[in-house]
Amino acid sequence: MPRITGSNHGESRLRMLRIVRRGDRHDPKDLTVSCRLESAVAGSLDEPPGAIVPGEAVKNLVHATARDAAHGEIEPFALAVCQRLLHTYTQITRVRVEIAEQVWSRLEIGGKAQGQAFEAGGAERRTTAVTSNGRQIAVVSGIDDLLLLRTAGLRAPSPRQQDDPTGLQDGVQRLLAGALGARWTYSSPDVTFGPYRQGVRHVIVETFAAHARHSVRHTLAAIGDVALASFPEILDITLSMHERPYRPADLFSAGVENPDDLFLVLDEPLGTVEITVERS
Amino acid sequence: MPRITGSNHGESRLRMLRIVRRGDRHDPKDLTVSCRLESAVAGSLDEPPGAIVPGEAVKNLVHATARDAAHGEIEPFALAVCQRLLHTYTQITRVRVEIAEQVWSRLEIGGKAQGQAFEAGGAERRTTAVTSNGRQIAVVSGIDDLLLLRTAGLRAPSPRQQDDPTGLQDGVQRLLAGALGARWTYSSPDVTFGPYRQGVRHVIVETFAAHARHSVRHTLAAIGDVALASFPEILDITLSMHERPYRPADLFSAGVENPDDLFLVLDEPLGTVEITVERS
Amino acid sequence: MPRITGSNHGESRLRMLRIVRRGDRHDPKDLTVSCRLESAVAGSLDEPPGAIVPGEAVKNLVHATARDAAHGEIEPFALAVCQRLLHTYTQITRVRVEIAEQVWSRLEIGGKAQGQAFEAGGAERRTTAVTSNGRQIAVVSGIDDLLLLRTAGLRAPSPRQQDDPTGLQDGVQRLLAGALGARWTYSSPDVTFGPYRQGVRHVIVETFAAHARHSVRHTLAAIGDVALASFPEILDITLSMHERPYRPADLFSAGVENPDDLFLVLDEPLGTVEITVERS
Amino acid sequence: MPRITGSNHGESRLRMLRIVRRGDRHDPKDLTVSCRLESAVAGSLDEPPGAIVPGEAVKNLVHATARDAAHGEIEPFALAVCQRLLHTYTQITRVRVEIAEQVWSRLEIGGKAQGQAFEAGGAERRTTAVTSNGRQIAVVSGIDDLLLLRTAGLRAPSPRQQDDPTGLQDGVQRLLAGALGARWTYSSPDVTFGPYRQGVRHVIVETFAAHARHSVRHTLAAIGDVALASFPEILDITLSMHERPYRPADLFSAGVENPDDLFLVLDEPLGTVEITVERS
Repeated sequence: MPRITGSNHGESRLRMLRIVRRGDRHDPKDLTVSCRLESAVAGSLDEPPGAIVPGEAVKNLVHATARDAAHGEIEPFALAVCQRLLHTYTQITRVRVEIAEQVWSRLEIGGKAQGQAFEAGGAERRTTAVTSNGRQIAVVSGIDDLLLLRTAGLRAPSPRQQDDPTGLQDGVQRLLAGALGARWTYSSPDVTFGPYRQGVRHVIVETFAAHARHSVRHTLAAIGDVALASFPEILDITLSMHERPYRPADLFSAGVENPDDLFLVLDEPLGTVEITVERS
Repeated sequence: MPRITGSNHGESRLRMLRIVRRGDRHDPKDLTVSCRLESAVAGSLDEPPGAIVPGEAVKNLVHATARDAAHGEIEPFALAVCQRLLHTYTQITRVRVEIAEQVWSRLEIGGKAQGQAFEAGGAERRTTAVTSNGRQIAVVSGIDDLLLLRTAGLRAPSPRQQDDPTGLQDGVQRLLAGALGARWTYSSPDVTFGPYRQGVRHVIVETFAAHARHSVRHTLAAIGDVALASFPEILDITLSMHERPYRPADLFSAGVENPDDLFLVLDEPLGTVEITVERS
Repeated sequence: MPRITGSNHGESRLRMLRIVRRGDRHDPKDLTVSCRLESAVAGSLDEPPGAIVPGEAVKNLVHATARDAAHGEIEPFALAVCQRLLHTYTQITRVRVEIAEQVWSRLEIGGKAQGQAFEAGGAERRTTAVTSNGRQIAVVSGIDDLLLLRTAGLRAPSPRQQDDPTGLQDGVQRLLAGALGARWTYSSPDVTFGPYRQGVRHVIVETFAAHARHSVRHTLAAIGDVALASFPEILDITLSMHERPYRPADLFSAGVENPDDLFLVLDEPLGTVEITVERS
Repeated sequence: MPRITGSNHGESRLRMLRIVRRGDRHDPKDLTVSCRLESAVAGSLDEPPGAIVPGEAVKNLVHATARDAAHGEIEPFALAVCQRLLHTYTQITRVRVEIAEQVWSRLEIGGKAQGQAFEAGGAERRTTAVTSNGRQIAVVSGIDDLLLLRTAGLRAPSPRQQDDPTGLQDGVQRLLAGALGARWTYSSPDVTFGPYRQGVRHVIVETFAAHARHSVRHTLAAIGDVALASFPEILDITLSMHERPYRPADLFSAGVENPDDLFLVLDEPLGTVEITVERS
């Protein structure tokens, strides 16, 4: 006889902009929140009363919490939403709150920062995911879609490619463009999250920029290695690179010399390398 | 000391069109393939030789397999890619192959089917994910983005909403629009996959159309219940509905009577209900 | 001295769902409306009072009009919005209203149509654009993103390609996949729009399906020719095809025989052919 | 009798990355090119021989030109593609070449610029459109999708809104977020394009940042005014702002005080204001 073994519900893409005002100097926090709630699973197919928290109620709770807790880093905000959901809806046994932040940069007038005018940053997003069952809390933070490019200094992915008769691999060696993602787990929810995030991002960018003559996998491993060595409160880190295919132009069009100077950009397929490094 | 505890790589969004020709009657198979490969994890950060299969090699293997195995259902094609990857690259310990199929419908001339001209179906995709370590094989098939709409007959998600002072819930009751997804696990890789897929889709559509006066969660549970009862080779099924918010127009604009006749469509937030039903 | 020579404002992506109820049988009209308003241009840079109609007011007017006029074809709805905008805001000298409709198909239970449950159609959209200055009205209707595929029967675009040494053109000959768009101008705003739209769509699909051994440009010209001959109230028609590139697999992967059976799908570049046919 | 009155074809989304190498210092030019070609229109529906330049040929010509001319500003590259197309295909009577550039910023290691590693900028694109019939050439350059935000200092769009009973307008006053676009026409194709582009962008950003207490339309007019006054080689400029709707949170969720601190972000509808300023 069939029985329900899993059940969750929630709201995603709750978008909001929290303006933090300190006199004439404002700070916009551009946030997208998702919540997933699990309730105790009944054996029967019928829905236990109150098992589902209405979407509208989730939304209102997130907005009210944003007023109090969304003026700083995204991790404390996610922790606060998590806690309030579990406290308000006791039928909920487990909550997962994900927040993504888009960064805005302050504009300048005549070289002087303007307090209330901003320009959007790139595709990069700051992320966090907080999961709790009321007793245990896990905080995983990350960076999504940091778009990076190297125009030289990469080793071929593998010795096999050296004798690749198609010559296609050659282009991959000479150019790397892709979206880097990172996710790291904190050992505790009582961390000063800001400096950690800045520190990991710094390690990523410097390692990527400096790590000539190594493969993508080796570069990701090196980032993980340095990040764990530098930040004791980080338990593990997963790094991924989604590479877009770039090919030297001579494969497609006749009469182009020095193909290394012109690459054709394709959206597909997307090559992925992912690595997880743990503190042992 | 940090050590690598997970490592995978692969290619995604390998798109291809396989034309199956039987005389003048052609059948297009419009497929998107992703492969993820895991190799044995070395303790050190250095990359073991051959640990990474070059993207170009994965792509070529998928294309060659498509010639032989992509003329029918997507499950046998995914099984064949999985097997070849494990057979060719013995350093790989685990493979996951995902395939999505976009359906094209045959056009007609004067009411008669034309053998070589087609129109694209909607957003709906047929999916499969085959995972293997060389000894065990798991086949999970599914449907993505089946866009459905009900204009009447839905019960409110929960009794709490009856006294919702905002009145916002009322609209949710009267209209449901969203993307339904399903994923089911087969008990064996030796199944005739086509009829199962058709059968599950039939259960979804008929249950959705007929199931008036019940909540979304109850409708999904009923679909799972019927699917497991009808198809013994299915071990479990997960059903999800991603609802787009539609609101009666009177909330936003004055002077509209009978708000049930006009709903405003928003893209966000997205409400989700997901349920898993297992054979017990 | 600089002066303002053009100025317009408006709202786009006003999305709504109008439910037309005839007893138990409902009909959903899924509509996206855009309005662009031009006001008389003052010579100075200062904004004349009332020159800009607030977005909220445009939105409310569209919603109120949707209640009265959005239960049938999109053309009368666009005409009604146009007229009300010009009537309400006399400072506006010219209005353009664009509407796109997504079609939903009725679901069946046991082969019988269900009155209140629907499945979304494909990417195809019905469109109309009505422009008016209060005295003259132009109605242009169309079809967007009709995704079509031919797996045989196409002539090469031009004799030049016969001796294309790259062989790349060969694939283009044997397969055509793309998005067809059409836009036609009516001779009057007092037309029964429904049958015209159905008629033009019928001509497009049948001509595309039947027109073997001709180039894309010739196929589009033939569609235009038949459409103008069949429907005297149509003054002119513009047809376009945005082709996605599909290439035989042998160019990229070794060891594939019969490349015509397997095509690689790329998203870019997009080849376009557009043609306008007028009644002379 | 129907006759063809317009006919064009072309390729869009030709994406490429041109690496300019000066020793160890590289500069990536990330470009997307579109070409539209018009040939002399024959009266009949039949295609004149050679009327259509095959997409593959257009692509090859663009790639070959990129090698020679894509190392600097996008305008000279567009001019070169235009000229070569008209010179090579004499049956073509008119060409339009559009190029969009995505900017990449150089990464730093320890505060020092790294020559071969880059991070993608935001959504902003540099654009140009060159049109020529062989005798006359028009160069229009621009900026697309410059995402801007003001958190204070905006006047309501119009006095009408002061007594808006819905209160909805209030939010629009206090926050502005949107995508600014600009397009300006040069008086000649022999301009040093780089400094002009930088200058116009500077005027846009400073005016937007400084122009408190004025409406969007007035801000756009002021940008146009300053741009024309500063750069005599610019004949006219069109500025547009696509505003995303942000609403104070109290409209939707109860119990939120100080709604100005929390805004809900919606993707739709999109309000647009566009203005053209000409040198008189």
